[in-house]
Parts: sequence; structure tokens; C-alpha cells
Amino acid sequence: MCVCVLVVFVNGKFCKDPKLATAEDFFLSGLNKPGNTTNRLGVNETEANVEQIPGLNTLGVSAFRIDYAPNGQSPPHIHPRASEILLVLEGTLYAGFVTSDNLNNTLITKVLHEGDVFVFPIGLIHFHVNIGNTSAVAYSGLNSQFPGEITIADTIFGAHPRIKPDFLAKAFQLDPNVVKDLENKFGNGN
Amino acid sequence: MCVCVLVVFVNGKFCKDPKLATAEDFFLSGLNKPGNTTNRLGVNETEANVEQIPGLNTLGVSAFRIDYAPNGQSPPHIHPRASEILLVLEGTLYAGFVTSDNLNNTLITKVLHEGDVFVFPIGLIHFHVNIGNTSAVAYSGLNSQFPGEITIADTIFGAHPRIKPDFLAKAFQLDPNVVKDLENKFGNGN
Amino acid sequence: MCVCVLVVFVNGKFCKDPKLATAEDFFLSGLNKPGNTTNRLGVNETEANVEQIPGLNTLGVSAFRIDYAPNGQSPPHIHPRASEILLVLEGTLYAGFVTSDNLNNTLITKVLHEGDVFVFPIGLIHFHVNIGNTSAVAYSGLNSQFPGEITIADTIFGAHPRIKPDFLAKAFQLDPNVVKDLENKFGNGN
Amino acid sequence: MCVCVLVVFVNGKFCKDPKLATAEDFFLSGLNKPGNTTNRLGVNETEANVEQIPGLNTLGVSAFRIDYAPNGQSPPHIHPRASEILLVLEGTLYAGFVTSDNLNNTLITKVLHEGDVFVFPIGLIHFHVNIGNTSAVAYSGLNSQFPGEITIADTIFGAHPRIKPDFLAKAFQLDPNVVKDLENKFGNGN
Amino acid sequence: MCVCVLVVFVNGKFCKDPKLATAEDFFLSGLNKPGNTTNRLGVNETEANVEQIPGLNTLGVSAFRIDYAPNGQSPPHIHPRASEILLVLEGTLYAGFVTSDNLNNTLITKVLHEGDVFVFPIGLIHFHVNIGNTSAVAYSGLNSQFPGEITIADTIFGAHPRIKPDFLAKAFQLDPNVVKDLENKFGNGN
Amino acid sequence: MCVCVLVVFVNGKFCKDPKLATAEDFFLSGLNKPGNTTNRLGVNETEANVEQIPGLNTLGVSAFRIDYAPNGQSPPHIHPRASEILLVLEGTLYAGFVTSDNLNNTLITKVLHEGDVFVFPIGLIHFHVNIGNTSAVAYSGLNSQFPGEITIADTIFGAHPRIKPDFLAKAFQLDPNVVKDLENKFGNGN
Repeated sequence: MCVCVLVVFVNGKFCKDPKLATAEDFFLSGLNKPGNTTNRLGVNETEANVEQIPGLNTLGVSAFRIDYAPNGQSPPHIHPRASEILLVLEGTLYAGFVTSDNLNNTLITKVLHEGDVFVFPIGLIHFHVNIGNTSAVAYSGLNSQFPGEITIADTIFGAHPRIKPDFLAKAFQLDPNVVKDLENKFGNGN
Repeated sequence: MCVCVLVVFVNGKFCKDPKLATAEDFFLSGLNKPGNTTNRLGVNETEANVEQIPGLNTLGVSAFRIDYAPNGQSPPHIHPRASEILLVLEGTLYAGFVTSDNLNNTLITKVLHEGDVFVFPIGLIHFHVNIGNTSAVAYSGLNSQFPGEITIADTIFGAHPRIKPDFLAKAFQLDPNVVKDLENKFGNGN
Repeated sequence: MCVCVLVVFVNGKFCKDPKLATAEDFFLSGLNKPGNTTNRLGVNETEANVEQIPGLNTLGVSAFRIDYAPNGQSPPHIHPRASEILLVLEGTLYAGFVTSDNLNNTLITKVLHEGDVFVFPIGLIHFHVNIGNTSAVAYSGLNSQFPGEITIADTIFGAHPRIKPDFLAKAFQLDPNVVKDLENKFGNGN
Repeated sequence: MCVCVLVVFVNGKFCKDPKLATAEDFFLSGLNKPGNTTNRLGVNETEANVEQIPGLNTLGVSAFRIDYAPNGQSPPHIHPRASEILLVLEGTLYAGFVTSDNLNNTLITKVLHEGDVFVFPIGLIHFHVNIGNTSAVAYSGLNSQFPGEITIADTIFGAHPRIKPDFLAKAFQLDPNVVKDLENKFGNGN
Repeated sequence: MCVCVLVVFVNGKFCKDPKLATAEDFFLSGLNKPGNTTNRLGVNETEANVEQIPGLNTLGVSAFRIDYAPNGQSPPHIHPRASEILLVLEGTLYAGFVTSDNLNNTLITKVLHEGDVFVFPIGLIHFHVNIGNTSAVAYSGLNSQFPGEITIADTIFGAHPRIKPDFLAKAFQLDPNVVKDLENKFGNGN
Repeated sequence: MCVCVLVVFVNGKFCKDPKLATAEDFFLSGLNKPGNTTNRLGVNETEANVEQIPGLNTLGVSAFRIDYAPNGQSPPHIHPRASEILLVLEGTLYAGFVTSDNLNNTLITKVLHEGDVFVFPIGLIHFHVNIGNTSAVAYSGLNSQFPGEITIADTIFGAHPRIKPDFLAKAFQLDPNVVKDLENKFGNGN
């Protein structure tokens, strides 16, 4: 509605005639259901952005739910177009972000329990790890209808096609064969 | 951090020297605790914005928790500087917003259960009512570090000093004495 | 021109090929003509936004003229996407806005005479009443090409379909029958 | 209020504690008084921006009144930070703007009578001339609390210190002595 | 990519399906080649904006190269939608901008040598002149994907159709015949 | 000037009274001097942002020069607050960026020669490697006065204090001892 009413094509979503908009355009269900965390990282993200909720188009806000198995982690990643405010719904997380080069790459961390809120500024690398004995659940709000997500390991070592191993070897001070091995793992979606 | 690092006085919050920033600046606890809903409306809001979390300054995002007693309601209100994405954590809500005058003041509503998400566009009047038999809890993300809240009834009938009853009587097609009565109720914080 | 030159579909208005733009795209006539104020509120608004002036698309500015019969009023309303700067061209107005909940819903008012300017911040509820013996005229500039208008009474009590009377009765501390009566009045466009 | 409430130092205006804000902070009088047009150009501008109305700080809107003697003109100028929507209150203006180099510097003009509205996109050179037999008056809204004004002739030929005449002679295909003469005229405030 | 990925029609450029984007969409060659400066002003600008690089759409940045013959000049001009940061690659420039009317049209200038950087704020009139004995080259970054360029002399005296000479004569304190002469020169692209 | 004129404290830089601004506030020298590339990566960046040029405050643009030894590289990094447009001044670079997770982490690369321009969208991981036999030089414009830089390897493995090795081992599918080794290398500034 509102802004969206007048927007037809902004951000690539075709906004319907606002006179035809219904509650369904502003609605999504299912964020109470635990995501499947039986994967390598023991983590699952359920998104609620403009791809699931067309009415979010031009509104500049979105959200997602994160499930963590014990020891599961949301690995180092960035949202290129949004800051994030995270609420722990269940469990105990260890969350942190790292400041930029000119601030000495300082690690800012906090152990978060149920009901704790933590903030991740736009574009900074951050992560959260389930350090409790049970599953953990968090819910985050972000100030973009399509914040994007760039998982560092997947993006660096799992790019398609792969980044030349020699380049990454130098950048990360790794043996080129280690890089190749990482690229094999991440490039195949592992 | 990040943007905030360089911001000293934006939006009235004095940003500390970023080299002195700590995790506490980005942290808030207590959103797991039910707010006290023993009030006329049976509702309570716990805020997590720049007033509670100084690190939010300039980041353009915030959140709050809402508790509803049975039949409790978050009455018609607006956020003048933010859109909102709400997640139902417990209970059953009836939520809605009304479009602007040029769209015929159309009411868009939805019954929301646990895990449902609903969106309220910036500046539109919206409300949510607990229509279940138990307490309800919701958590919202907003795209402003200080979104503001304007509860319609409190603002119209509870302004300090009061708006001239004759004006409101005409605007709302109410008897001036009814308006005076409302102003007595709302102006005293009832 | 300018920004608009390159904008085809932003905000839902189809911007013509800038090479084909003419003065008509940036022009509107008729704001010297008094609007018809023979209505319940004794007020009339003549708009000059992107719906009347297609060249405003993406330029972020618009305007309107307001006519007030004696005792006429622009009732409590908000513009969800713009701040407003009003100039009194004729007559005497009593204008005001109410601050948000966290500032105690403070009423800020001023009697305005010809040549006076008053400002209404984005998203705040405001109103202006003709308190003179003659017709009054004002002209306002707003910082959005489509600022929107939400008249509180029409939106709360005249929504289509109506908001459940019990909810509004609780929110506004009114008898449900009074709410029903109001909804009958406003819902029928009275 | 609103946004400004929380802004202390944005845009160089020290915003007072919002709890101390009064109606005077949002008010300006005197725009009904004709400005003095007994000057070379026969024009006068009365401003209503953040310098006169401190409450405009961060609100992104402002206005001004323009008076024109017969044959008076608002000479070619730009507002570096705002688009403008102009309403003719009295008289007959010939108004125009010129598109940018890549659109062939097309002149878009319109004769404007009382009640006509015309739009000037951000950063484009525009002008308005009183082509009627009487004084003319216009009122403009702009989408910046401090839009700025750059009168081309004063800026080019009246800069302090002067721009080297040889440079301007080449740029404007004028004899250097003509440039010097212009600089003498404009540099002294004529 | 990124933002653009989701943008279909913003700013009038039809963004391709991001899954089909290639490196060519983010690439331009040829800025090492001197532009042809055998023209009246002895200057040439090679652009690198969204018209040449479609992937710039929505990214808010662009660039251009400027070549200057000895004594060549980039004449007084403005970018209506961007600030500019210029780097001198070769030669010696005299660069300046003029502040707005309310700051007394102050001329701010600097002689720039190879490796010097100078900044031109959005919407201010600026110029750069090759004051060395050799060709000069500069490269500029701007914060808009389509910053626009308004050369003052071409826009004022070379508009199509021409601005009425009497108006410009008064604005610039020139004889109308001088204005006509200028308009003949600039209107024909000289 | 311009916008900055009125800005006192935005983004943490104390803007001087605009009437006292001089050309030095908008100037920086030395970008013609090759940076020292005798370091592990064979790369050097010379910045021209608001920290070096105070007049950039609020103008939303900056730049830097990059020097690359043969085989030198600007390793994978992001700018959290800006898009970048790079021009190759000398040499041959291999440049690339990787799209976000929802676009399959696609690697977009290009070999760049002198005079080639390439674009890096805000927040995406990108890199450039000198693949020629000689030194290379590039110059970039960015749409922020303080874009920030987050070198991935330094931020992940060189944070202070270090990120718990077990977490990174899991995220990057590395042996914890390899992570520890990396952290020793990067944490000491190697």
C-alpha cells in the first residue's frame, strides 16, 4: 500500500494495481516452524523478504528466522544492503561482528540468551554460534526489502566458476592445494 | 560501528569514539520477559530502539516486543518514520491497516497465528487485537532507529493541552460533550 | 526532465521519453479557483501532485491549495510520506499538530493570519481550522511527489469494510453503539 | 518535532531539546508583505527556510515568496539541492527551464497566469519574468530545508574574487573587456 | 548485480535478469585514449556512466575522463545530481567553484598538478582550465549513475529555442544585440 | 561548501564555518606518487576520503589510488557503504566480484587493460590482481565520503581478539590448527 501503491516496477517486483492489493500481499506464514538444520553447519534460515511478501516492495524492511542445531552456526557473512537487529527466541548464542580495517578489525562479541537483542551494522562481517546444549532460534529484522546475504566461505571458496586458487592462496596465506581442496568442497555445495 | 563510527551527533545521540565502542553499545536484554498488560487496553510494548541501544544510531533499524492479554489490543496507531514487519510468537491476532484517502480507506486485515508475518507500510494507521483465549506475543522489526509511535486516540483526545472540543466534535461527528468526556479520559492517561 | 529524463517506471508513473517532454508535463492550472466548500467540514483541497503533473515524477515535491468556509476545517490528518509547509493566503486559521507518544502528545498550535507560514513534520497528526469570519485560503508545499493523505476520522470510522466496532470502542473508550453510529456516518461518506 | 526531535546538530542548526520546542519554532510571518522590487532586476525573494524557521531542520522542505515589478525577472538560476513547485498568486509570468547538455539544452517554457503551477527540476537552470503590466507574486515550495540559490550572472561574473576574465571570455565567447566590464558591474553588487 | 539484480526499470534502464548479467555489463574500455580537443574550448570529456555501462544502474556512481589542450578549459558548468572528485593525471589545471548567493558567491580556486585531487560539491558552478604548456588529463568520480552536465554558456545562450534576448540582456547586463550575437554563436553549436 | 556549508557535525567531522572554508578543505595532493608495494600482497592503497579531505563531509563521494607490484593483488574485500568504479591507469589487472548467495555466488571477472573501467556493486566481495609483468596503477571513485574497507582475510583471520578457531574451522571447513596458524599470521599483521 502506501508507497507501493504508486510503484509499478521498482526493484524488479511488479507491484499490482493498489486497488487490487489484498492482505495476502502483506502476509507470510510458517515462521513458527523450525527449519531443517541437518546440514554441515547445523543452521537454517527462513526468509521473509520481498520475494516471499510482494507487499514489501519499496517498504525497506524484511525479516528472517534462524534455527540452530546444538553447535550449529550462522557462519561469517554480510548483508550488503541492510543493518540487522537480532532477537534470541530460544537457546544461547555467541554472536559477533568485526569492524573495518581502519578500526583495527576489532571483534565485538556477546553471549546472547533468550530475550537478548544484538545489532549488526550494514556491511560488516558477522556470525552467530549456538553454544548451548539445545536448539536455538532467533528472529531478525533488517532495513531493506531485499537485504542480500553473502556467506564469506561460500562466496570466496564456492564461487562459480571458482576464483583462481593461486590468488586466494596469496590472499589467505594458504597453500594452493588447500585452496583447491576448499574450492572442491564449497563449489559442490558442501 | 561502521557508519556510526564516524557519526558524532546525528539524530541527537552522541556517538562515542568508535575505538571505544563495546558490545554493550549494540546489546539489549529482557525481551523474553512478558510486559505488564494489566492496563485498560491489555497491551504492553517493550522497545529496542536507539534510546535503549545507542549503537543503533544511524543504522536505520529497530525492534520491539508486544504483549497482549486476552482481548488486549494495540490500538490504531502509526509510526511516522518506519514500515513494520511483525511476527506472531504466541497466540492469535487480528491485524489490519487502512489505506489512504485516495484508495478509499480500504481496510486490509488478516487473522494471524503463531509464526505468521504481517507488514504495515510507513505512515498507515494499523492495529492488532488478541482474539485468542490466551496471551499473545509479537515481535516487530522497523526500518528506523527511532520510528516513533502515534497512538491515534491518545494523540487526538489526549493531547496536552487538549484540542478544542468543538473542532474535534466537528471532525469526528461527535457531540462536543462526548469529546470533552473523551478528553477527560485520555488526557488523564486513562 | 533531469532525473525524470531517465526514469521510465519509477513510482508507477510511466515517464515519457524525455526528448518528447513538453511544458505541459510540468504545468497545472486552476489553483486560483476557490474549491467547493459546501460540505460537512467546509473545506476543499485542490491537489498538484504527480497525478496531475506527470513531470513531478521522481522530483520529490508537490503542493495543494486549501479553501475553508467560515468555521471550516481541515480535520486531523497525516501525510505518511511528506512534511508540509503551509502559507496562509487569506483569512485566519488556527493550526496545530500533536507530537508523538514519547513526547507526551504535546499540542503545538498557532493562530495564523495572512502571510503566516507554519510547518507540519512528516507523519504527525495535524489540523487547521478557519476561525475567522470570512473564507480562508492556504497553499502548501510538500516534499514528496505523492505525499498521501490520511484523514483520521475517515480512516478510523469510515474504513471499507468497517473496523470491528468492539475494537474501536475499546481503543477510543466509546460505547460500541456510538462507534457503530460513527461508522454509519463516515462509511457512507458523510 | 518528529524527526527533528532527535536531531541535535544535523545540518548545522542546533535543534533544541524537543521537549522545549514551541510553536514559534515552526512559524514565520510576513509572507503577505510585498518585497521591495526597486532594484535592477525588479524582483524580490522572501525566504522561509531553516534559517528563518528552525523547526524545518531535517524536515526537507521550505518555501519562498517572489515579488516582481512589471518587467521584473527572477534571472536564470539554480537550486543546487531542491526541486521547486511554483504557484502564481498574481500577475502573468513567463517561466522556463533548460534541459541538460545531453538533451540538447532544450528550453521548456510556459506563460503562467494566476493560479498556474509550474515545476523546476533539481539543478536545472530556470527563470521567470513578469510579462504583465502589473506587479506579480508567486509562492514556491522546495524539497530541502536549505535549497540554496545560485544566480548564474552573479555567480559567474560577480564571484569574489573575480574569475579570470580571459577564462570567461573564452567560455562565453565574449571580448575580455566585456567580461571585465561585467565583472565590474556584478562584483560591486549591481 | 546486487541492488541492480532486482531492479528492472529503475531510472529508465531496463535491467536484465541478473542471472544473465555478464562482466560486459560492468565494463567499459577506452578511457586511456585522449579525446579530441580540436574544438573551440580545447576540451573533451569521455563519459563512463549508465549510458555506457548498464550495470551502473541503481549503483549511484559514475566517472569520466577529461582531456585539455594547452589553454583548453572545461567551462563553467554544474552537475545537477552529483558531487565530483577530480584527479589530475597529467598537466597543470586551475580549478575552481563558486559558492551560492548566501555565501557571497565566493570563488574557491586551486592550481592543481599531477596527482592532485579537488572536490566540486553538488550543484555548484565550477570550471577547470589547463594553464600548463602541455596537454592535461583528469579523471573524475561522481556519486550518481547519471550525474548530468549543464554547461552554463551553452544552456543560457545556446538553448533551443533561444531564450528571449531581452530577458538575458537584463539578467546579464548585456546589450540585447550582444545577447543575440551570443545566441547565434552558441545556438549553432559553436 | 554547498551542503557542507550548513553541516556542523554530520558523520563526525566538524565542519568549519562555511565562510571560513578555503580551497585547502577541498584539496589533496600526492596521488601521483606510487605507493609502497613492498609488502606481502604487493599492493598499496592511497586514500582520498573525508579523513584526508574535510570538505568531502556530507558530499557522498571519495576516491583512492591503488598500486600493484607485479603479481600484487588487492585481495577479496568489500566496501560496506559504497559502490566503486575503477579505472586502470597502467598495467593489466584481472578483476572480479562474486554475486550473493541467492544468485549462486557467480564469479564475474574481466581482464582489464589501461583505460578500462570496471564496476563493483556495494557490499559485494571483489578483488583485483596484477597479472602483467609490470607495476599496475588504478584509480577508483566511490559514492560515499567514507566508504570503509573490509579485507576478508584480515577481518576473518586477523580480528582482534581472534575469532574462536573452532568456529572458523567449521565455517571454512579447515582444520582448527590451520585456522590457528592463519590467525597467528594475520593477527600479527602479516
